[in-house]
Amino acid sequence: MKLCALLQIDEEVAKLLQLKAQLGGDEGKHQFVLKTAKGTRDYNPKQMAIREKVFSTIVSCFKRHGAETIDTPVFELKETLTGKYGEDSKLIYDLKDQGGELLSLRYDLTVPFARYLAMNKITNIKRYHIAKVYRRDNPAMTRGRYREFYQCDFDIAGQYDAMIPDAECLKIVYEILSELDLGDFRIKVNDRRILDGMFAVCGVPDEKFRTICSTVDKLDKMPWEEVRREMVEEKGLSEQAADQIGEYVSMQGERLLQDQKLSQSKLACAGLADIKQLFSYLQLFQVTDKVVFDLSLARGLDYYTGIIYEAVLTQAGVAAACGEAQNGAGGEESVSVGSVAGGGRYDGLVGMFDPKGRKVPCVGVSIGIERIFSIMEQKAEASAEKIRTTQVQVMVASAQKNLLEERLKLITELWSAGIKAEVMYKKNPKLLSQLQHCEEAGIPLVAILGEQELKDGVVKLRVVASREEPRPQTTPGQIKSRETLTETSHTHTHTHTQSTVH
Amino acid sequence: MKLCALLQIDEEVAKLLQLKAQLGGDEGKHQFVLKTAKGTRDYNPKQMAIREKVFSTIVSCFKRHGAETIDTPVFELKETLTGKYGEDSKLIYDLKDQGGELLSLRYDLTVPFARYLAMNKITNIKRYHIAKVYRRDNPAMTRGRYREFYQCDFDIAGQYDAMIPDAECLKIVYEILSELDLGDFRIKVNDRRILDGMFAVCGVPDEKFRTICSTVDKLDKMPWEEVRREMVEEKGLSEQAADQIGEYVSMQGERLLQDQKLSQSKLACAGLADIKQLFSYLQLFQVTDKVVFDLSLARGLDYYTGIIYEAVLTQAGVAAACGEAQNGAGGEESVSVGSVAGGGRYDGLVGMFDPKGRKVPCVGVSIGIERIFSIMEQKAEASAEKIRTTQVQVMVASAQKNLLEERLKLITELWSAGIKAEVMYKKNPKLLSQLQHCEEAGIPLVAILGEQELKDGVVKLRVVASREEPRPQTTPGQIKSRETLTETSHTHTHTHTQSTVH
Repeated sequence: MKLCALLQIDEEVAKLLQLKAQLGGDEGKHQFVLKTAKGTRDYNPKQMAIREKVFSTIVSCFKRHGAETIDTPVFELKETLTGKYGEDSKLIYDLKDQGGELLSLRYDLTVPFARYLAMNKITNIKRYHIAKVYRRDNPAMTRGRYREFYQCDFDIAGQYDAMIPDAECLKIVYEILSELDLGDFRIKVNDRRILDGMFAVCGVPDEKFRTICSTVDKLDKMPWEEVRREMVEEKGLSEQAADQIGEYVSMQGERLLQDQKLSQSKLACAGLADIKQLFSYLQLFQVTDKVVFDLSLARGLDYYTGIIYEAVLTQAGVAAACGEAQNGAGGEESVSVGSVAGGGRYDGLVGMFDPKGRKVPCVGVSIGIERIFSIMEQKAEASAEKIRTTQVQVMVASAQKNLLEERLKLITELWSAGIKAEVMYKKNPKLLSQLQHCEEAGIPLVAILGEQELKDGVVKLRVVASREEPRPQTTPGQIKSRETLTETSHTHTHTHTQSTVH
Repeated sequence: MKLCALLQIDEEVAKLLQLKAQLGGDEGKHQFVLKTAKGTRDYNPKQMAIREKVFSTIVSCFKRHGAETIDTPVFELKETLTGKYGEDSKLIYDLKDQGGELLSLRYDLTVPFARYLAMNKITNIKRYHIAKVYRRDNPAMTRGRYREFYQCDFDIAGQYDAMIPDAECLKIVYEILSELDLGDFRIKVNDRRILDGMFAVCGVPDEKFRTICSTVDKLDKMPWEEVRREMVEEKGLSEQAADQIGEYVSMQGERLLQDQKLSQSKLACAGLADIKQLFSYLQLFQVTDKVVFDLSLARGLDYYTGIIYEAVLTQAGVAAACGEAQNGAGGEESVSVGSVAGGGRYDGLVGMFDPKGRKVPCVGVSIGIERIFSIMEQKAEASAEKIRTTQVQVMVASAQKNLLEERLKLITELWSAGIKAEVMYKKNPKLLSQLQHCEEAGIPLVAILGEQELKDGVVKLRVVASREEPRPQTTPGQIKSRETLTETSHTHTHTHTQSTVH
């Protein structure tokens, strides 16, 4: 609450400063606040290179599992999002009413997916969707928590036999986290029906299930004492019920499966039977080493109806992935990364959109990609490896003046052969500055035009790193394809010829 | 104006209907309006397949020319967008003031790019950016005009010698439109300085340059008479000035270059000299066959300061690309596609964001991708070729009951070998339905498990299209890599063995 108030003050201050700037400074000159909106960020070329690498790993996995992809608009009718997110609804961004429909920015990709299924009467599909979502949350950008952030969702919709698609979702989380090489992780699994059964057994009134569930969900962020206090003082739960919940959420998997009291709840029993079934499939998928049944896992969203799960990086794992000593500086920040994937079964959501309430059972998982980006960026900074932000193979340079025409002619040839090539946008660039650009940008080859070469009808090709100039040299008009050039750069790097230019 | 009023009525009606739905029907049951926001659309898996193909062509071209990529948030501080778009500013989407900063959805990618450069003090970069932008415009979805749409921008920022980066932008448009195979096209080129010089020569008062420019820009959508009427009646230009403009915009390139009156304007002369220089580079880039100097081209945006250009598909080209007869039904709709790329030089925009007004000269181009999607979709529908929406290579199927465990074991092996594979989420699926799924989804191979095969320690592999079952067959536990499987599917399709199942 205190945090909320502080947050609000922050925002009011920002707004006032913005207004002040709009009104102008002393000179009456228009002054800009040069920033991105709160909780958002630009991606620079290096960050984009990391982002694309991560996306490519994730998309490969989704495609290996046979998923199609769809896309939906960034905003939905406000009403489409209403009543789907419980207490988190206050975090939805609304658009201004400018005459027309009332719109909100999407809060996740799951509700738009359900709307899409109902609208197009699709009863089964396996799809992934990678796109940005929006939450007016308290940003913590160093930990990868933004107000605009990517979600990478994989969902399976359709009436199938129990726990088979659910198990595949967990298999996918396992594969992606392993392939991204983020260090050790755990996937916690629970079931909303077990939670509800437990709430019933503990004496939580029906109408308080969802709100108590939201509080239990905070167990990964705050200690039990605070969670208990919120249940009792804010949500009016009896102390006895709260203490019983406390006992259950600290229990281990095996004991829960045999708990006499819990087995009185039909809901809980159905959930527990499914968890058993799930683990038998996970065994076949060879992923049980990382999956644990954890009754303290609750997930914040209202729409889950069955199994739920969340993947967390273990502290040691994160530190190792970032190449930090356990007690190193900055270590504390990086170990708090926490949840990197989550999801569950939501069999009722599509039915909420269907005029006749027809249900389409769904299960899915969302990869918390921003946190993964943060880790990958830290990893990249810690390593000495240089990240290239372009793929240029060759720079077309000149050793003397007045060769712009010749450079443009040659690069036209290279481009039409599909070779990635650059030229400096100067009439008479210095050779040194052309070579420096190659070194800074990591361009492996430079084609150097000079008057002598033009007379001889050849192009001097130099390997930038070694300064070697392999022979035979390429003659203008003879470039055939990107293969020729790539081959040249690989096979001739060990030929020792002299570099004669400048 | 009449159109505007009608549009507003439309929107009011939509809003009332939405409110009515929210209040509920007769039964008091919550009724949803099941739609996407006006002017937006979902992309289904087929449309996504087309979209990804188009993006990949465009990105390859941008990378061939050595561009990096960046990303910016979908919303900016409202103030960042203020005063950049002239008369089109009314089309900007604002976010609701929910306490905090005042925000707007980005209207294009150029202004956020300039903000990014100024904020990070970047003085030279060559970058592309592919992302969605937002305009509260009158949508015409059948012609690919949406309120949410993609832009694919390529820009070169930096102080360089005149017209070299400008020529590369045109080269890129030429390459992309050629590679996308959209039919014949033209790239119109003009210069804001020539336009301004012409306005001065024709007697347009200075303060009316931008607004008259906006009207001239409509020449591709409405006849000269209407443009003239808007200039005179709405914008208060003298009839004489309007008529002189009319004369100029109908003139051909060569005559303009020699026009005595125009050469009295220093601005126009500078522009004309640059156009000449530009064409000399375009000649070296071998693209002059499609580029024309056209004084009627004006471009709507305020921020252009030098050369401007726009690519249009020719009517014949569009019809041919869509495989339609010139007089075919639906032809009329598809030929109105018009502009598919546009851009120009904007040397003052970054300076508007810099506290000290430091300028960073920029030139860039935006590919009008939505119109291209529309054409590609029409093309795909006209052709018989089936578009696959997944890349699954093999389906793991069973011929008898109770083989789920075996199927899950085998698919686990396939996935870990990097093979794209699917399994039906049923304990006992019918073989026929498994094979039907393969045919519908275009999956080339099916691995069929049966009791006999399990006994023999083999897996029956069938080519779905031909029903051939090549030998030797793969033994479980022997799958090594995706290469093995791909090879099998290619090299053995001509081996004639009998298909024995069902």
